[in-house]
Amino acid sequence: MTAVRVLTATDIVQLMSHVGVHSFMDALIDRLQVAFAEYSNGRFRVPARDGFHYNAGLVEWMPLMQHDAAVLMKMVGYHPTNPAQRGLPTVVSTLSMFDTRTGQLTAFADGRLLTAMRTGAASAVATRLLSPPDVSSLGLIGCGTQAVTQLHALSRIRNFSKVRFCDTNVAVADTLRERVSCLVDDKVQLMPCEIEEVVERSDVICTATSVDVGGGPVFRTPLNTVCLHVNAVGSDLPGKTELPPEFLRTAVVCPDFRPQAVAEGECQQLSDEEIGPDIMEIAGRLVESRKLCDRLTVFDST
Amino acid sequence: MTAVRVLTATDIVQLMSHVGVHSFMDALIDRLQVAFAEYSNGRFRVPARDGFHYNAGLVEWMPLMQHDAAVLMKMVGYHPTNPAQRGLPTVVSTLSMFDTRTGQLTAFADGRLLTAMRTGAASAVATRLLSPPDVSSLGLIGCGTQAVTQLHALSRIRNFSKVRFCDTNVAVADTLRERVSCLVDDKVQLMPCEIEEVVERSDVICTATSVDVGGGPVFRTPLNTVCLHVNAVGSDLPGKTELPPEFLRTAVVCPDFRPQAVAEGECQQLSDEEIGPDIMEIAGRLVESRKLCDRLTVFDST
Repeated sequence: MTAVRVLTATDIVQLMSHVGVHSFMDALIDRLQVAFAEYSNGRFRVPARDGFHYNAGLVEWMPLMQHDAAVLMKMVGYHPTNPAQRGLPTVVSTLSMFDTRTGQLTAFADGRLLTAMRTGAASAVATRLLSPPDVSSLGLIGCGTQAVTQLHALSRIRNFSKVRFCDTNVAVADTLRERVSCLVDDKVQLMPCEIEEVVERSDVICTATSVDVGGGPVFRTPLNTVCLHVNAVGSDLPGKTELPPEFLRTAVVCPDFRPQAVAEGECQQLSDEEIGPDIMEIAGRLVESRKLCDRLTVFDST
Repeated sequence: MTAVRVLTATDIVQLMSHVGVHSFMDALIDRLQVAFAEYSNGRFRVPARDGFHYNAGLVEWMPLMQHDAAVLMKMVGYHPTNPAQRGLPTVVSTLSMFDTRTGQLTAFADGRLLTAMRTGAASAVATRLLSPPDVSSLGLIGCGTQAVTQLHALSRIRNFSKVRFCDTNVAVADTLRERVSCLVDDKVQLMPCEIEEVVERSDVICTATSVDVGGGPVFRTPLNTVCLHVNAVGSDLPGKTELPPEFLRTAVVCPDFRPQAVAEGECQQLSDEEIGPDIMEIAGRLVESRKLCDRLTVFDST
């Protein structure tokens, strides 16, 4: 029998500190960009995810196949009462990898940290593709777990000098500085702000809130904004959206995976012809995509 | 974090010999019958399986939810060149179990032996429900891996004195006696036969062949058979069937899971109204189902 590589959550943290968290994130961003480009060349098959939804939460499966290499199955649990009732995270996940030559399991890994870093890396790829190279101010709307890897990933591909942040839960906003201290340069200015200031004064924004279904948008459309890139990370359920529809309509909205974005992302608020090219298409056509950097752009990350 | 119980293939063999292989099979048969009965009461959700099919084989996922308890994900690989080219089994599988209260992985197990025993147990449940209690002769068409657990499971619920068997590969048939020696009583007479004799002289038959797609049926409709129960185990791909359609039409055909049986089981050969009640319905209505024991019945196991 083939040996199965098992990576627990602890193993992954150790691996990360051995490789270096920056090197790990840099490699992840680069490989994800290549994967996005290759997706549009048909090297991957990604069926829409499916799952069991019930009162307490949901368990979903997200299969993926890389041709002539591997099948990956990600299982995700989403149980909002976990933190308060059990001291467990809301979202947990596991990854299993199978060799397509034999069908055998080759690796099994905890997916929590990898998913958070992947979500950060996806925003970094989108930001590298859709924002000018000289952007200097970042805005974070929502300062929970996702904000940390968003900030880390974006700091690796753009030289932000100012980071404005806000959260409806002040206690969460208060601890952000501490949580990102080893991930961003000391010279970066981290400033808690009102949401209006975050929106008006940032070149790039990440929204990663836990707004309720039907509770959006989380900010009002800014006036006089012509060049801004937004990574909309938070919407991940039918009815849950973060951005104002009129803002979306003035922007080029690029979903990560269109059928999913239409079902549970910001694209829920748009008609079919209002949705822009997906990020895979943009990654596959770098030259043509460069002109989008001077526009208002949204990466609809689901 | 919750501890994850990991059961390798070796662990499962050890567990089995600790519990006793007969006790294990007996418990499995009983619990499976209860699960079938509960399925018709809506306690389980079983979406149709899905997967990646490619040149070398396929990897499929088979999710299941037991309400207020667990989500189970079975991943199955089917790669026909494994034995000859790599000394690996054609079919491999893994099982992962998640707690529906938290979404967390609670157990992970190799699925090979468990699947083989489960397939045997399913035929035993069907045979217990659909054949008279006093049947005494069993026929095995196809003597590969599945035949072993079919014979073992059926021997636990009926008192067979004669077992007739055949295989198109004589070498495989020759080793059957050896492979089942510790699973059936010494007094059971195991007789290699021509397929016609197996069909004509058995009260219960299991077909578990590796007939090619389009290569069926594997036997001709017997004459003068009024009471016979067949467990059709081998058909598991579109186009792959083992039983003659005219035989199926004279029988009450009970699929394990109708949408799947219609896609890849014997039910492929039947129109909708020619298909009988599924095994879950029969398990849920024991009294009404008893009269089927005097009929020609087929369990379409997919």
